[in-house]
Amino acid sequence: MNEHPKFAVIGGGSWATAIAKMLCDNVDEIAWYMRNTYAIEHIKLQKHNPNYLSSVEFDTKQLKLTNDINEAVAYADYIIFVIPSAFLATELKDLTESLEGKVIFSAIKGIVPETSLIVGEHFHQKFNIPYENFGVITGPCHAEEVALERLSYLTIACGDDKKAKIMGKHLNSHYINTKISDDIVGTEYAAMLKNIYAIAAGIAHGLGYGDNFQALLMSNAIREMKKFIRKVHKMKRNINNSAYLGDLLVTGYSTFSRNRMFGNMIGKGYTVKSAMMEMSMVAEGYYATKSAYTINQEHKAKTPIIDAVYSILYDGKDAKNVFKKLTEKLD
Amino acid sequence: MNEHPKFAVIGGGSWATAIAKMLCDNVDEIAWYMRNTYAIEHIKLQKHNPNYLSSVEFDTKQLKLTNDINEAVAYADYIIFVIPSAFLATELKDLTESLEGKVIFSAIKGIVPETSLIVGEHFHQKFNIPYENFGVITGPCHAEEVALERLSYLTIACGDDKKAKIMGKHLNSHYINTKISDDIVGTEYAAMLKNIYAIAAGIAHGLGYGDNFQALLMSNAIREMKKFIRKVHKMKRNINNSAYLGDLLVTGYSTFSRNRMFGNMIGKGYTVKSAMMEMSMVAEGYYATKSAYTINQEHKAKTPIIDAVYSILYDGKDAKNVFKKLTEKLD
Repeated sequence: MNEHPKFAVIGGGSWATAIAKMLCDNVDEIAWYMRNTYAIEHIKLQKHNPNYLSSVEFDTKQLKLTNDINEAVAYADYIIFVIPSAFLATELKDLTESLEGKVIFSAIKGIVPETSLIVGEHFHQKFNIPYENFGVITGPCHAEEVALERLSYLTIACGDDKKAKIMGKHLNSHYINTKISDDIVGTEYAAMLKNIYAIAAGIAHGLGYGDNFQALLMSNAIREMKKFIRKVHKMKRNINNSAYLGDLLVTGYSTFSRNRMFGNMIGKGYTVKSAMMEMSMVAEGYYATKSAYTINQEHKAKTPIIDAVYSILYDGKDAKNVFKKLTEKLD
Repeated sequence: MNEHPKFAVIGGGSWATAIAKMLCDNVDEIAWYMRNTYAIEHIKLQKHNPNYLSSVEFDTKQLKLTNDINEAVAYADYIIFVIPSAFLATELKDLTESLEGKVIFSAIKGIVPETSLIVGEHFHQKFNIPYENFGVITGPCHAEEVALERLSYLTIACGDDKKAKIMGKHLNSHYINTKISDDIVGTEYAAMLKNIYAIAAGIAHGLGYGDNFQALLMSNAIREMKKFIRKVHKMKRNINNSAYLGDLLVTGYSTFSRNRMFGNMIGKGYTVKSAMMEMSMVAEGYYATKSAYTINQEHKAKTPIIDAVYSILYDGKDAKNVFKKLTEKLD
């Protein structure tokens, strides 16, 4: 096995920029694909991503920047996808290079809307990527704190332990600790579900509920998450590990989370449409809510929080009334 | 069984004031003991506690205010103790009235330093209170949000289910939901341990660790709490219920928590002594740290966070170095 593979980062957002930074602290060169050619030119000239984590300075000699996804894929052995799940299928349409033999990591938090699959399943079913060549990178980790080099922990889950370790080794640094896991499916679902709970936290805050209720909501959310994931993928896992509970908390308590912000606007009385127009970034949790709700029609886990968010976002129900009823179901 | 008992609140702090308010929303009259005679006179004249939750207005006709603990105890069937654990033994020295047949509830979060016992054990061993006459009132609940009538949830644990229900019924209102539990010991330990973790969160913040680390710390704290409590009192409990995880989160994430504030000062470089002098309120977690550490010498649960806080507070170890080592033990 190649202990020193070449890496490509697919995506130009804040989390992609954070991962590019982590890799550049470990390897001489990476390929970095982003759609936005202006951003590429800016990074080449100014050494900073103009749109995200612009305080991070790159050594441009380390970057093979490209706006051709095929060039990045051809270059790398390990390819890390870090784009909103809603754009993944579109990006992959441009792909002519083969993914055979490549190791794919997903740092995407969500469901591919076109297929209603988590990213790993999408790559597996649509691109024949075996699970030993697929992995997930998950937090608790805000990109903004990576920029500040504040100590953060990542969990790397992969069907093949050794590849998880190789990936981890290349992200590790004085401000990044990594641990490995074999729960690809569970960590992916956790990363997706937490965004729904962050929307719920935002709605509650917008409606005027306080910190006492927020703590209660998170305590219910982690129990709900456990039930949901167990139905979808039964295996032994401690739901309080950082990849599940930690990731939920960092998002659910973050006033910077765009999912929480989106929920907050709904709670304050914005319509779903106008809240979405106000947001310049995609709130992953919006799509995740529909996916989780739909998936759960089959599994029938008891998920009062997801159901409440769904009925507000997709059935046009009044947030205040829905949350009033929700409070009676929580404990 | 008396379904409409008389209640006394023992204590004049913010949590005592919050509980007095909850009771007054349900019963015609309560006895309310506090040491501070000036505060008693102020409440009688101005209808507000001058020192804590001063926005709460009382109907003074509902209050039998007294600075004689015996008068309050003689009056009531249910006696709720809400004073810092460090003062409990001293207050109880003045007690000449018998507690026989009385139902004792503790809303104290901590260990009685003189006996190193949680409050229930202290009443049981020193005052022969049987566990069917003892209960615990626990959050997640900041007193400040009770004053604002923001929806909050309480867990009422008692050796006798029926008494827990009676207590719960008299605290319930449009802003308070109660649930009952039979885990007196577990909820008491949880309420005590969370203050240690809040100190740890404060130290981390003071040292410059960010939100990513805070989420990781809380995820480790709840796992550590589970191990500790299981050693002390083995029974079936879901550690993610609101009385454990919820209570941990509301304190660990609160910038108003005096334990977190105390830790924050230590992290910023204050000595333990000067941090304690700066604080006008007692940081329960300071005593809890010593108790938990001592208790665990026997049980030997793996508690790296408690050990770290102990070595900073009681062994004079440097917070920065201790936390550097702690970060390597967390995951």
